[in-house]
Amino acid sequence: MSFKQYTEKINTHLHTLLDDKQGVIYDSMRYSLYAGGKRIRPVLTALCCDALGGDREAALCFGCALEMIHTYSLIHDDLPCMDNDDLRRGKPTNHIVFGEDIAVLAGDSLLNLACESIANAKNIDTATKLQAIQILFTASGADGMIGGQVMDINTEKNPPDEKTLTLLHQKKTGALIKAAASLGAVSANNPHDIFDEYSSSLGLAFQIQDDILDVVSSVEKFGKPINSDEKNQKVTYVTLYGVEGARKKLKEETDKAISAINFLGEKGKALCDFALYLLNRDY
Amino acid sequence: MSFKQYTEKINTHLHTLLDDKQGVIYDSMRYSLYAGGKRIRPVLTALCCDALGGDREAALCFGCALEMIHTYSLIHDDLPCMDNDDLRRGKPTNHIVFGEDIAVLAGDSLLNLACESIANAKNIDTATKLQAIQILFTASGADGMIGGQVMDINTEKNPPDEKTLTLLHQKKTGALIKAAASLGAVSANNPHDIFDEYSSSLGLAFQIQDDILDVVSSVEKFGKPINSDEKNQKVTYVTLYGVEGARKKLKEETDKAISAINFLGEKGKALCDFALYLLNRDY
Repeated sequence: MSFKQYTEKINTHLHTLLDDKQGVIYDSMRYSLYAGGKRIRPVLTALCCDALGGDREAALCFGCALEMIHTYSLIHDDLPCMDNDDLRRGKPTNHIVFGEDIAVLAGDSLLNLACESIANAKNIDTATKLQAIQILFTASGADGMIGGQVMDINTEKNPPDEKTLTLLHQKKTGALIKAAASLGAVSANNPHDIFDEYSSSLGLAFQIQDDILDVVSSVEKFGKPINSDEKNQKVTYVTLYGVEGARKKLKEETDKAISAINFLGEKGKALCDFALYLLNRDY
Repeated sequence: MSFKQYTEKINTHLHTLLDDKQGVIYDSMRYSLYAGGKRIRPVLTALCCDALGGDREAALCFGCALEMIHTYSLIHDDLPCMDNDDLRRGKPTNHIVFGEDIAVLAGDSLLNLACESIANAKNIDTATKLQAIQILFTASGADGMIGGQVMDINTEKNPPDEKTLTLLHQKKTGALIKAAASLGAVSANNPHDIFDEYSSSLGLAFQIQDDILDVVSSVEKFGKPINSDEKNQKVTYVTLYGVEGARKKLKEETDKAISAINFLGEKGKALCDFALYLLNRDY
């Protein structure tokens, strides 16, 4: 399957979960969930599952739950009391369209639904569902993604050094990317940490690329304001190393990711391609 | 055990879950979770479990997860973009102390931790944990508690009739109270809906009493601003029926709750007492 085909399957599954629901809260949830995200995390789950010959239905369920958590975090991140962003994925942010009160609740509902959707999934055994919930909610909680968001808020007052910045990104974006790969492994009844080296480097590379794109992309391509890091006086991999230095680091992390899946031989090809696809993305 | 003893066990368990955690996000979570709530929901879970001779450790775990969800909903409800309340349980609200950004994330973290704490609990079998997660997260989601909060926001523009008001409360407060009883039943390997009649009436009685206390209590006792409903021009059971009419309805629902557990005989005594305790509460 091509990445596009994976993405289509994921979008279809997300639609089946929410399309028949009525009311403003569901309108608000759908607005952000269907806003055309790249679906990098659930695609990664599907690829890791496929590389090990796992259960595609389980991977789809787990990956989509993860995507809901990613989406809720963006809705809350964009709020006026957080980053105060008006534009996301080329569209007005959730609170601009639905108001702040509904945006807060839509975020809450997506986090809640992520859990429900796994717990209530059919055709997946109980132990696998529970393991998926453990992995996902450990990654998204106060020691993972939310912890990274808190570090990010704190760095506005205290600019971080490289070590702190790396820890911040390992939590804020890295934790969910690592979880995405783990969920793929679990869908194939493999040890949850089998892809940890690959996904750690991939997560870091993803963040470095995000920092680079914030400087060199356009609003049209990037779908959100560019130069926002400079405006917010944020320390990024670009402010630390310059664009060329950051590109070098991005290449290094991508190479590390690719080396880390040597053990899969031919079966790792799609995961190699995925790392290169992320390396070369321009949005 | 007395209600006080149950409450102490619950508080101890909540402390063990969070006391060794460092950082502002945990400070913020603890601030609201340890603010002296009445613990009505986890006590109900424990009582329902005990009435059926169930697994107390499971009931404690599930009840505390539910209390975290209740607490997160209060933190988000109090935000300036929602009810904009400065006082809760006699103390400044979370966002007044920690700022809005941390308050949003502390709420998110508590919802997340509710799920984690059940998924990672020891000595409870996998199927029971998954069933508890299903019950709890169905009750707290967009078709349950959050749905009730959305209805509440909408009624500010369109005053509800009695039927709508009852549906609102069935979702906003009733869903979690019903879930509390269900979790007790599940801890005892009984059908999850065995207490539904009891807990539905109890939930409604609880809300009616809240509406009455908003009018007749004092800030000191109630721990939050009184007459807030009138100030916010909210339709309540008191505005619909007057204080005496609401008291009559409260008594009726309490009687219905007590009748609904006749089937337990002597074993239902603590649940009867609990309904009467809620009837007579003054805070």
